[in-house]
Amino acid sequence: MRKITLQTPLDMHIHFRDNEMLNLVAPLTAKTFSGAVIMPNLVPPVTTKEAVVSYKQRILKAIGDEKFEPFMTLFFQKYNKEFLESVKDDILAVKLYPAGITTNSESGVSSIDSVELKETLDAMVELNIPLCVHGETNGFVMDREKEFMPVYESLARDFPKLTIIMEHITTKDAVELLDKYDNLYASITLQHLIITLDDVAGGMLKPHLFCKPIAKRYEDRDALLKVAIEGHPKVMFGSDSAPHPKHKKEACGCAAGVFTAPIALQVLVDLFDKNNALDNLSAFISENAFKIYDINPPKKEITLVEKEFTVPSSYSNETENVVPMYSDEVLAWSIQE
Amino acid sequence: MRKITLQTPLDMHIHFRDNEMLNLVAPLTAKTFSGAVIMPNLVPPVTTKEAVVSYKQRILKAIGDEKFEPFMTLFFQKYNKEFLESVKDDILAVKLYPAGITTNSESGVSSIDSVELKETLDAMVELNIPLCVHGETNGFVMDREKEFMPVYESLARDFPKLTIIMEHITTKDAVELLDKYDNLYASITLQHLIITLDDVAGGMLKPHLFCKPIAKRYEDRDALLKVAIEGHPKVMFGSDSAPHPKHKKEACGCAAGVFTAPIALQVLVDLFDKNNALDNLSAFISENAFKIYDINPPKKEITLVEKEFTVPSSYSNETENVVPMYSDEVLAWSIQE
Repeated sequence: MRKITLQTPLDMHIHFRDNEMLNLVAPLTAKTFSGAVIMPNLVPPVTTKEAVVSYKQRILKAIGDEKFEPFMTLFFQKYNKEFLESVKDDILAVKLYPAGITTNSESGVSSIDSVELKETLDAMVELNIPLCVHGETNGFVMDREKEFMPVYESLARDFPKLTIIMEHITTKDAVELLDKYDNLYASITLQHLIITLDDVAGGMLKPHLFCKPIAKRYEDRDALLKVAIEGHPKVMFGSDSAPHPKHKKEACGCAAGVFTAPIALQVLVDLFDKNNALDNLSAFISENAFKIYDINPPKKEITLVEKEFTVPSSYSNETENVVPMYSDEVLAWSIQE
Repeated sequence: MRKITLQTPLDMHIHFRDNEMLNLVAPLTAKTFSGAVIMPNLVPPVTTKEAVVSYKQRILKAIGDEKFEPFMTLFFQKYNKEFLESVKDDILAVKLYPAGITTNSESGVSSIDSVELKETLDAMVELNIPLCVHGETNGFVMDREKEFMPVYESLARDFPKLTIIMEHITTKDAVELLDKYDNLYASITLQHLIITLDDVAGGMLKPHLFCKPIAKRYEDRDALLKVAIEGHPKVMFGSDSAPHPKHKKEACGCAAGVFTAPIALQVLVDLFDKNNALDNLSAFISENAFKIYDINPPKKEITLVEKEFTVPSSYSNETENVVPMYSDEVLAWSIQE
């Protein structure tokens, strides 16, 4: 039976939510990842030092004894340098959402303008705080990311020393931008390496594969997969694993988000294996992130074995019930217990 | 209060299904339409004279005393002239489905080739039987109709005397083809005059707006609306109203189809009114179809009044429960009882 041992895998974009959902999902990530970048789009969003610190404490409590580093983020607003300095040691990055673009982003930025945001972004450069961006306009769903590219280009040009991470990219347009600006990086989810809009809405409609940005075309997926499996130094794994209760996913107006945390490593190993790219997996899930963010997370070895794993129908506790991607399907690799 | 009286409105593409679903939905169409073209994709599909006749009887039984003409269709297979001659008086058209492209189309045509289908199509020309086509390839969901255009062009060129109806068109590409071939016509649904993919998957995911072909881009919708409201002589209203039980629409793998039968006329009046095109509504819902199909359906007057109508959450009988488009919303026009 083949085995592979991963050193300190990281998930550079995850939603842990709060309360009982946090208690359900955080341990599932902590079990197989050494650390993760925690998104700040709670209700209300995480915009103060106190909110960051107390959210981190709730996460650590939910995780218990597991060795795991939650890298905290701040929800982007116009912050001054003094505030950012005070919170710098508690966060890894600041996450910018255009207003209303995804779950709990209502208090996001309504106009992403270099002049308007200059004070905040200059301070972030000075304090060496990266900017993570949900890069979508409010245009036609298939064009939202592509339409956002000029915003990335402006930010990259106007703030050449700012580390900018294009989060959960879904298009070849975003991939092409990576090599054009030194300070642009990207995270890529599991599902966008695998699915297209055909999987979401080409046969039956699949709410559990519905996310934002929505899965795009085959050429987009192929461009994402190419940079992932070649271990492109500017891309990192960020699952964007986004739990919603089952009843909210299977409803008239289904919320956006794919829950992949508990199956991400198993599927990534299989995907890289099938593409003869296992040698580049550590770049994608660990090393690139170490360098881009200049971090040194707790060492952790995770061993996977080529042994079938039947994905549970759902993960649940007393109050929450979440359906993972590949629920009830059989994966080729398992986490060694 | 404004009123408008429609003369003999027709729905040139509808799914009545069978059994209790038929009993639920057929009366809703018969109440406001003078006639409708009944799709043959039952399980098994309607491919024999006996099946046509007995399905028509079941429809007439479901409808009861209402004055209404069900125009029957045959599910396309390679039929010979003798058979088509025997069934000619019982059908209005033959409906061609590419295999596996939509609900109950598994036994459709796997290759649409003029040589392959010549005997059947020549016989249809000779007997003056129109061909209705679900025009989609099995390609990427947003490209399926556009990719099918060369098939329409081949059919139109190779069988210049065959009346070909491009059913439920959703793209500007299909609209553009209308003026290129004398023998190409089209039906357009209610939802494709109104929604785009943004309505299905741009905000929350909306299963009740999910249909095949899927709603496309704004420029597509605008092209469809333009030919509808100008009363273009080659386009007809065909709702493609497709009832699925509520539990199958709001599920992990939601079936394709929008149920519009009971609200179609109310919404069409409002849509044409808002586009200052009420004068062309009768072309779209009656007169064009009379000419294209050379039919003379039972005369029926339907009067609508500008009075609010709250759409029911669902329509149901003892065994079936179907959610209509605009459920629980308020429409501006009502059917005068």
